Amino acid sequence: MSVIYERVALIGLGLIASSMGHAMKRDGIVGEVVGFAKTQETRETALKLGFLDSVAESAADAVIDADLVVICVPVGAMETVAREIGPHLKSGATVTDVGSVKQAVIDVVGPHLPDGVHFVPGHPLAGTEHSGPSAGFADLFKNRWCVLTPLSGGDVDASARLRGFWEALGANVEIMTPDHHDLVLAVTSHAPHLIAYTMVGVADDLSRVTDKEVVDFSAAGFRDFTRIAASDPTMWRDVFLNNKEATLEILGRFTEELFDLQRAIRRGDGQQLHDYFTRTRAIRRGIIDAGQDTDAGNFGRGDGGAK
Amino acid sequence: MSVIYERVALIGLGLIASSMGHAMKRDGIVGEVVGFAKTQETRETALKLGFLDSVAESAADAVIDADLVVICVPVGAMETVAREIGPHLKSGATVTDVGSVKQAVIDVVGPHLPDGVHFVPGHPLAGTEHSGPSAGFADLFKNRWCVLTPLSGGDVDASARLRGFWEALGANVEIMTPDHHDLVLAVTSHAPHLIAYTMVGVADDLSRVTDKEVVDFSAAGFRDFTRIAASDPTMWRDVFLNNKEATLEILGRFTEELFDLQRAIRRGDGQQLHDYFTRTRAIRRGIIDAGQDTDAGNFGRGDGGAK
Repeated sequence: MSVIYERVALIGLGLIASSMGHAMKRDGIVGEVVGFAKTQETRETALKLGFLDSVAESAADAVIDADLVVICVPVGAMETVAREIGPHLKSGATVTDVGSVKQAVIDVVGPHLPDGVHFVPGHPLAGTEHSGPSAGFADLFKNRWCVLTPLSGGDVDASARLRGFWEALGANVEIMTPDHHDLVLAVTSHAPHLIAYTMVGVADDLSRVTDKEVVDFSAAGFRDFTRIAASDPTMWRDVFLNNKEATLEILGRFTEELFDLQRAIRRGDGQQLHDYFTRTRAIRRGIIDAGQDTDAGNFGRGDGGAK
Repeated sequence: MSVIYERVALIGLGLIASSMGHAMKRDGIVGEVVGFAKTQETRETALKLGFLDSVAESAADAVIDADLVVICVPVGAMETVAREIGPHLKSGATVTDVGSVKQAVIDVVGPHLPDGVHFVPGHPLAGTEHSGPSAGFADLFKNRWCVLTPLSGGDVDASARLRGFWEALGANVEIMTPDHHDLVLAVTSHAPHLIAYTMVGVADDLSRVTDKEVVDFSAAGFRDFTRIAASDPTMWRDVFLNNKEATLEILGRFTEELFDLQRAIRRGDGQQLHDYFTRTRAIRRGIIDAGQDTDAGNFGRGDGGAK
């Protein structure tokens, strides 16, 4: 592939940044990758892992001469980063981010970027339960979605180039407004995460059921909740604080619906339960057809499963 | 391995029964397997798949001379089966079941079994999102738990033999009282399933988010919910109707806790959220250490993952 950006700066070197680094290196789609992370330890680990060419001593240093700057820190830390790098950005550079919420990021990052710099907010929908620079791998974005939410009136060429960059990393790109992104993600990600965190917390609290029992018998459904509830606490705190309204709206609808099903259980209304469960089964088929999961019959066992 | 039961009857030929059949055949731990399913089609499919030696024309016929009878129908159908097979059971035979609730099964099955027959209720905690005789595979129980809830005063040798049988199928066996089983499963399985069904239903209902978006962006967390919410509707209707009290208790605690976290989001209490998410992360580590899941960094991708 040909080079899309000569010099890329990654600010923050966790799971997403390291995966981007590995993929960029593998595919040769950038000239040079420079990175910055707050701690010395992370910077050294990143250099050793070889997914970037050099590390800078500050975010400001990292962005000098960069054609693409990717802000990969938790959403709550983005304003500080933007304020620091703003004065050092090259004219004509593109700035993007990988935050799980978009309107809040636009509100806090946008004002710190000078004229002549193109801000194209982004969100790669990819992750694992692991975090940190060692957790990254080149295939993380393969066949996953990356949502871009370009600002109205923004530079069309800069957006198109960033789109090509994500596609080169293996992602499918979708364009949305920031508001719509935040609502869609509240449904497919933010509310499910809070629900999973809650259920795991309840299990942990229940003194009549021991931790050992919770762990041993997790394969019956709970296990998938614990996988979700093992995600990075800082990242998720910031998501909920910054996508408050959409998340609370979806959670409100969720509890409404849950109460209705609880009532069906209490009254013994088997038909309502059966109808509901039949309907939700169909949506699963759509996800498998769309290639977003496997339907292997031995899911979670055998190759790649629990040993 | 040596033969544990000469003749085993499987009543109901879905995922669990077919997996038991495959495993029994592979390991040679039984002399002969006979099966019965309500529909002709299922009986024929089962015979073709080769996980049993013969099919009977009725449940009553199937249990004649059987040393072990395994009731593998949904919990709501167990009383009918018990009533039918009761008079035809061999003296000294063991009857067990694979239902996801235990006290309700004991209440409806027990009264129909004659003296001299040993009833040892059981629940293998294994399953996939698929159902039916074609979904079974011999390794389903490997390193999974099977809970037995022997009746007080029941035959100790019969329980020990059934325990050995499940261990031969690859399972780890745990003994519990029926009540405690129903509470533990309400936490690790029944409540999480209802929650997952609910969240998938909410997503499907939300007209401002299209089905395509829900499906495309499911990898961000929602996907695991859809896997859970794709389980067999009849089985799950019966679970909720028959483990009503424990499930409603856990759901009550869940909504209490969820409201507390929603309040933290509304007030912007980042510390409370961060503390909660940090605590739930630890339980995940326990599950991986216990061998009930993998922590492969590329979970869901690459081999066995989404293509």
